[in-house]
Amino acid sequence: MSQEHIVKSFDSELTRLYGEINGMGELALSQLSRALDAVNQRSASIASEVIEQDKQIDALERDVGHDVLRLLALRQPMARDLREVYGALKVSADIERIGDYAKNIAKRSIILSGTQALPATGGLTALINLAKELVSEALLSYKSHDAERAIAVRVRDIELDRAYTSLFREVLTYMAEDPRQITPSTHLLFMAKNIERIGDHATNIAEVAYFVVTGDNLIEARPKVETVVG
Amino acid sequence: MSQEHIVKSFDSELTRLYGEINGMGELALSQLSRALDAVNQRSASIASEVIEQDKQIDALERDVGHDVLRLLALRQPMARDLREVYGALKVSADIERIGDYAKNIAKRSIILSGTQALPATGGLTALINLAKELVSEALLSYKSHDAERAIAVRVRDIELDRAYTSLFREVLTYMAEDPRQITPSTHLLFMAKNIERIGDHATNIAEVAYFVVTGDNLIEARPKVETVVG
Repeated sequence: MSQEHIVKSFDSELTRLYGEINGMGELALSQLSRALDAVNQRSASIASEVIEQDKQIDALERDVGHDVLRLLALRQPMARDLREVYGALKVSADIERIGDYAKNIAKRSIILSGTQALPATGGLTALINLAKELVSEALLSYKSHDAERAIAVRVRDIELDRAYTSLFREVLTYMAEDPRQITPSTHLLFMAKNIERIGDHATNIAEVAYFVVTGDNLIEARPKVETVVG
Repeated sequence: MSQEHIVKSFDSELTRLYGEINGMGELALSQLSRALDAVNQRSASIASEVIEQDKQIDALERDVGHDVLRLLALRQPMARDLREVYGALKVSADIERIGDYAKNIAKRSIILSGTQALPATGGLTALINLAKELVSEALLSYKSHDAERAIAVRVRDIELDRAYTSLFREVLTYMAEDPRQITPSTHLLFMAKNIERIGDHATNIAEVAYFVVTGDNLIEARPKVETVVG
């Protein structure tokens, strides 16, 4: 087998990996949108769809892991190629977690819709839309090998942290004012926390994108707003 | 360089990886104990130590990632060796997350100790101790390549999920009875959720341990109690 042939094969397998990850990313974004629909429309059936669909993201992550192991064993990539393979593993793990959070939001939306006193979910909508933008930008920076875009994601995550902290405080106030709000609002707080965590995973993806392109680590210098609530 | 020499070098580098991961694991366990001390002794200074120490776990994870990339590039491991390297990457990521949760618990303990009405934290102590056992068992199954022990961890995680769900319900009751409990109890709920998540990461570690030893995936068949609260 000629060297050129091996090189071609690596590239085509890498393209396949990117395809799988792209599919995972699109699915995760669509899951977030559907989870938000489940919350806003108080629809248990949409929520159930989201919960069911999450299995597909999990399966895709296992496919990526499998392909990565095969690629490492057969092609023995070096330098940037090796970073690409490492990056695929990391990014797929982050997307899988984002999918889990979408599933958790859907699960809680079912509990929420069963409670009498419904908390205002407008703040949650804004939060999810911001998180979706971050995930979308992070995936784009990864797919297009765009280090500048990756840096921008890290900075924008601060916006999401601030929006989360502000919503957290607001919801605590409602709870104190009306005890019937306690149970549904607690679920709302957990949903908001899930979204804040999605932003962290978007940041992780952006950091991996930066590392794949440059070979440098941005992690040490991450600008992090310490949210009061951990 | 003889084949034997290469083999020896791989083994010694793998031993080094295991050493790093062992160090991470012990640090994470000690962080959990100290986070619990911070909660029970209402000590902001212990909490600050925990927050500070977390950086060390993060640094160790980066070391593992670095060593894994080098090992892949230089040694090009196959079959079980490759699973070992893959496992090291996965397990270190899970320990890093466990460390994050310990840090989050410490952060919230500071907020808790500043509130007037302090919620009962006895349930939290039991939860953390259970989580520590799970993490400890998972790390042992990984370190000793013990597939049976790995399976047992997955089953025991169900206990933790049940204990969490029961604590969650109990705390919601306190909040409804006494509005002054709302803010501190909300933080308590988030801490409990962190601990429940630690159990999930212990399960992940056990699953990786099983995969490294057997080459098979246990993930598809994970017995999962659906906690009502996602």
